[in-house]
Amino acid sequence: MELLKRAILERGSVVNKDILKVDSFLNHQIDVGLYNSIGKEFKKRFENAHVTKILTIEASGIGIACIAAQYFSVPVLFAKKTESLNTDSDCYESKVYSFTRKRDYKIRVSKKFLNKEDKILIIDDFLANGKAAMGLADIVEQAGAEIAGIGIVIEKGFQEGGKILRQRGFRVESLAIIDSMDKGQIKFRE
Amino acid sequence: MELLKRAILERGSVVNKDILKVDSFLNHQIDVGLYNSIGKEFKKRFENAHVTKILTIEASGIGIACIAAQYFSVPVLFAKKTESLNTDSDCYESKVYSFTRKRDYKIRVSKKFLNKEDKILIIDDFLANGKAAMGLADIVEQAGAEIAGIGIVIEKGFQEGGKILRQRGFRVESLAIIDSMDKGQIKFRE
Repeated sequence: MELLKRAILERGSVVNKDILKVDSFLNHQIDVGLYNSIGKEFKKRFENAHVTKILTIEASGIGIACIAAQYFSVPVLFAKKTESLNTDSDCYESKVYSFTRKRDYKIRVSKKFLNKEDKILIIDDFLANGKAAMGLADIVEQAGAEIAGIGIVIEKGFQEGGKILRQRGFRVESLAIIDSMDKGQIKFRE
Repeated sequence: MELLKRAILERGSVVNKDILKVDSFLNHQIDVGLYNSIGKEFKKRFENAHVTKILTIEASGIGIACIAAQYFSVPVLFAKKTESLNTDSDCYESKVYSFTRKRDYKIRVSKKFLNKEDKILIIDDFLANGKAAMGLADIVEQAGAEIAGIGIVIEKGFQEGGKILRQRGFRVESLAIIDSMDKGQIKFRE
């Protein structure tokens, strides 16, 4: 997706060969116009997937999922990372290791909101090692629902997540795949 | 806002006199059509406030802020609750006590994204004791920016947050104000 790649090049910054900062438009400050283009592109790619619900994970995935859901006319469901007093006790749970936070955390989705008839589109802002997407897929499978696909805004192609998910047979659509960021140079996959 | 009140009555559930569950449409599963109506209503109420940016807090505020921002044609900025490797070190910080999580947490916004010329609309899903909104307002004031107003989806009118914020001179627009939930009966403020 050219508009996204241009935003990454012009407004992102490479911190080191592993870390890309896109906090000026994607995951801290949000360019809602760009989110709309991203949402339309997900709709185009999953046009015939008969998506019934979009599943994402807090926090950065929520805005993207909500904007995209407008084009699919389906509800959004977001997995919660922390337990609060208001969390439903009857939940599907999965464990996710976060490399950025250097610890395991549980993700939870209330059982009320997933059922066997659902065709779920999983959406997230980043795909790196794939742990978050695997946790979400695990939850969908626990519910006996179908995974229509996985929509990612930026895939770090030099990490293993995309490969693992595709080998497991999931349809992964990443709108920009970065193959390397060596010496501060972003190389996109063709 | 009648559509919202109807959703609360028909799809919400009163857990006890203090806790309202709206996780089927507002803060776990999301009815994006309702979010759109909420966004339009915020635009109507803050039509002449010359908002330059919407500020919210992760996680539930993000989707509402993104959908609302479409009507204002401004960026969204969301305060982060936890420190990760990718968090900017040059941040405005404030401390917030969460009654649902029973602990203090820090919220952070990168200094890059707030400046003196900004007129900030603060948006959140709930207003109860007002701690989150006060923390966000504190951050806006640290940046020397102006607070155009505070837009809340559901205000628990029987808690003190709304009163405190209005006494501080903020324009608070809550789309539904609940005055009591005694015996499972939701009473809205007229």
